[in-house]
Amino acid sequence: MKVSKYLDSKPVQELPGVVKREVINADDGAPNYCMRVFDVDPGSSTPFHAHAWEHEVFVLSGKGVAVSDGGEIKIDRDSVVFVPGEETHCFKNNGDEILRFICVIPLGT
Amino acid sequence: MKVSKYLDSKPVQELPGVVKREVINADDGAPNYCMRVFDVDPGSSTPFHAHAWEHEVFVLSGKGVAVSDGGEIKIDRDSVVFVPGEETHCFKNNGDEILRFICVIPLGT
Repeated sequence: MKVSKYLDSKPVQELPGVVKREVINADDGAPNYCMRVFDVDPGSSTPFHAHAWEHEVFVLSGKGVAVSDGGEIKIDRDSVVFVPGEETHCFKNNGDEILRFICVIPLGT
Repeated sequence: MKVSKYLDSKPVQELPGVVKREVINADDGAPNYCMRVFDVDPGSSTPFHAHAWEHEVFVLSGKGVAVSDGGEIKIDRDSVVFVPGEETHCFKNNGDEILRFICVIPLGT
């Protein structure tokens, strides 16, 4: 069993305004999927892109929108988002605080 | 893309003092793993047990301990716990508020 705080995990600047922490990954012995925590600054967004694998997302704090080709849906604390593989998507912070969310992806992607 | 609030998911009483919500599962089209949210009442605990699959846990609120054969480790908001498959474990609420955490498991377990 490994117990930590998510802030103990190394922050990686994914792109301007977006920081990622891999809080559980293969280095911990995880065999199937990786848990990450993202911090998106106000006015910033993850890339609008698609890929083969799914996302399972839980919003911890802040306000924003989950964007797909179908439009924008508001998200905030306690929102849950499932993005199927191959669906174009991003997460945009349109609030005035950090948009923080957990995002789980399969390992090996 | 599916967007919801975790409280929209049906609560299931797993055992006295422990409520589980499957917030993303196979019914949503998830192919690999299932995201659940647990509410453990003060004084209650998940079962002390082992199984083949891993847990990836993120604590949302409350205070408690993650228990294994190696002892107890304190957990609270923003704690991350990785429980490898076959390790005996439970999550016990020793605080005075609900212990709420996300727990991701592989599908098909």
